[in-house]
Amino acid sequence: MKAIKVGLLGIGTVGGGVFAVLKRNQEEITRRAGRPIEIRVVADKDHERARKMVSVISPDARVVDDAFSVVNDPEVDIVVELIGGYGIARELVLQAIANGKHVVTANKALLAVHGNEIFAAAQEKGVMVAFEAAVAGGVPIIKALREGLSANRIEWIAGIINGTTNFILSEMREKGLSFAEVLKEAQRLGYAEADPTFDVEGIDAAHKLTIMSAIAFGIPMQFESATIEGISRLDAVDIRYAEQLGYRIKLLGITRKMESGVELRVHPTLIPAKRLLANVEGAMNAILVQGDAVGSTLYYGKGAGAEPTASAVIADLVDVTRMHTADPEHRVPYLAFQPDAVVDLPILPIAEIFSCYYLRLRVADKTGVLADIARILADQGISIDALIQKEPQEGEDQADIILLTHKTQEKSILAACAAIEALPTVQGGMTRLRLEMLQ
Amino acid sequence: MKAIKVGLLGIGTVGGGVFAVLKRNQEEITRRAGRPIEIRVVADKDHERARKMVSVISPDARVVDDAFSVVNDPEVDIVVELIGGYGIARELVLQAIANGKHVVTANKALLAVHGNEIFAAAQEKGVMVAFEAAVAGGVPIIKALREGLSANRIEWIAGIINGTTNFILSEMREKGLSFAEVLKEAQRLGYAEADPTFDVEGIDAAHKLTIMSAIAFGIPMQFESATIEGISRLDAVDIRYAEQLGYRIKLLGITRKMESGVELRVHPTLIPAKRLLANVEGAMNAILVQGDAVGSTLYYGKGAGAEPTASAVIADLVDVTRMHTADPEHRVPYLAFQPDAVVDLPILPIAEIFSCYYLRLRVADKTGVLADIARILADQGISIDALIQKEPQEGEDQADIILLTHKTQEKSILAACAAIEALPTVQGGMTRLRLEMLQ
Repeated sequence: MKAIKVGLLGIGTVGGGVFAVLKRNQEEITRRAGRPIEIRVVADKDHERARKMVSVISPDARVVDDAFSVVNDPEVDIVVELIGGYGIARELVLQAIANGKHVVTANKALLAVHGNEIFAAAQEKGVMVAFEAAVAGGVPIIKALREGLSANRIEWIAGIINGTTNFILSEMREKGLSFAEVLKEAQRLGYAEADPTFDVEGIDAAHKLTIMSAIAFGIPMQFESATIEGISRLDAVDIRYAEQLGYRIKLLGITRKMESGVELRVHPTLIPAKRLLANVEGAMNAILVQGDAVGSTLYYGKGAGAEPTASAVIADLVDVTRMHTADPEHRVPYLAFQPDAVVDLPILPIAEIFSCYYLRLRVADKTGVLADIARILADQGISIDALIQKEPQEGEDQADIILLTHKTQEKSILAACAAIEALPTVQGGMTRLRLEMLQ
Repeated sequence: MKAIKVGLLGIGTVGGGVFAVLKRNQEEITRRAGRPIEIRVVADKDHERARKMVSVISPDARVVDDAFSVVNDPEVDIVVELIGGYGIARELVLQAIANGKHVVTANKALLAVHGNEIFAAAQEKGVMVAFEAAVAGGVPIIKALREGLSANRIEWIAGIINGTTNFILSEMREKGLSFAEVLKEAQRLGYAEADPTFDVEGIDAAHKLTIMSAIAFGIPMQFESATIEGISRLDAVDIRYAEQLGYRIKLLGITRKMESGVELRVHPTLIPAKRLLANVEGAMNAILVQGDAVGSTLYYGKGAGAEPTASAVIADLVDVTRMHTADPEHRVPYLAFQPDAVVDLPILPIAEIFSCYYLRLRVADKTGVLADIARILADQGISIDALIQKEPQEGEDQADIILLTHKTQEKSILAACAAIEALPTVQGGMTRLRLEMLQ
């Protein structure tokens, strides 16, 4: 059968991986897809490097500087966008769609921020936009959510969806080091970028979470309403105390459907150390999905890297190749639900979410302090699940108190914390982290 | 849009689950599938019970005794086969296919044994046969293997794919009990059948493994060539020794592609206690898949039960509904590879597989015994990874030796074991278990 012709935008790490895997596994992939998939043209600003890479793997492919010439090329059936970012990538994807080309992209930032516009344009033109590589690298979580769990009302998703931060947290716990120390090591090893903001402040995770939330609940992308807290201010002492209480701290992306709206939040989270998710170490990703029929399912694997990401890009290419000439009605809808069945459920303000909490505070070592704290919590309807009071160190007259609460609403905790911090026996501010039982 | 009409064969546990979930989540499922999915007729020999169940959930559906009347019913678009077993189920499925109906089945035994015949018939008639529910309940592992990992050469799969045996092994380890004791408890709790042979002897796991092997490697179903060892002869002492060495024993289904053929084997297996797979406890299922591009990915969830299995059956119904009127060339091939691209790779005899091994033997407490054993292993080219020699108990003159070997071929271990058992200092037979590092 005639080959399907692909134009590749950007041949960096992932692009190189796509090229290499497609070539190496050509025979297996063709046996699955039913027809060959060929990269015919590659656009990259670094023309010299691109030409060198392409000439080694597939001398037949053309190399150009101008990405627009690829999306306008009548020979190209599918455009693979691996440039990243919101700017030029958005223009190229919209232009490709306008030209009636299918698009495969790994660009989570683009979809989380401009996804609604892109999917509307694609729907209009009757083309596919596939994005398995946008979340958790080669782990087929988009397929699981869009198709594998289609019988379920998805209740919530909790995922470790950023490898850099999971690596840092694993190292902080294992070696008892501070965030700053481990970050430096991660940068040296290539696990963290020179400017690590996107990863460590949770923005990358929030992009991915936004996409999962949309396809799980059938809602538009609402990245701008996500609550995002990273790990840069996380104190090593809290990792230690959490461990003593039987918990580990992970940067989780959590999205949960409530009656009044959807929780959409990324933040460091205590989870019971016995959970599989707590035992996902290093740069690995894992996503726990709760469905009303299936219960909990978990998906685990490498969330980044050239070939794992290429695995997802090529799986999309196979899917698109198979459905290339099929009527659009036979396709899986972009956001899992038929476009006219997407509902506009709002993202809840963070004050309205429900969670358990970990609280750490420093108090004067006097009788009656605990009673005051317990009364304030009780007044807010918050019940205490566990409490540790550390003996003051030799020569000090202050002690750490660590409290775990049962589930409550964030606004109750905020009110309680304000009242506790106003007590004359409480020194300085409190540390407050969310805790999820994941059941 | 017009509803798609389903005929349900068998309304036991899973059938009841399908009915209930389809009704409860009707709105969400229709929003995904693009048209309603309706069970119009149910066949069950227990007519009275079936009528009662159906009348509660969906009074419009008809109830009949004769399953053949359903597969011959011109109104029915899709037949859902939940009868189980090889006999009548095979006839019904073939008849449904002959009548041009799509089939969704949870029947692993049927597919592992008669899959080649069934898929050939379906190909001939241009109908779909979907079987997500046949492996690991609601975990979308079939979809991951057939579609999500299509860029990869799958290298191997190792899975905990039988909940009953995983529950028994978890209990044996945690409580230090014997197989017989835990089996009784499992039967009382409903985790094991009155006749537990299918589960505890590994047959059910081998059915599921056969299906995964076929779609991972693009080979026909070859259940008759699988090596199957269950857990009924597993000694609690080996679970304890394994634990001391940092391993846990799980009943794994393992399939690996080698140059000369495919390993297809179910047996108790030592795996490092730190692996996620080792920490899958109770009746849960998990499957680890190694692909050349993606690396390791893992899929975890409930492997049985009414609603988890219904989740998979309905996901298939949604897929089939979506592709109902599409040209067959747009569909995912039955065994992941196009029918003309399936290759006839043989299953390797067990003597030719490669594995690490755990050996336990009882020896006279004399000098020179270890030297004899080490020499025999060295003669077979087997290197020792770890060794424990237990001190003889008070008043005894025999000691247990536990050995872990590096990777070797099974026939070398068999030859070595025969030679070791022939030593005059070795008492009785040896215990031999396979050990996999899963990397």
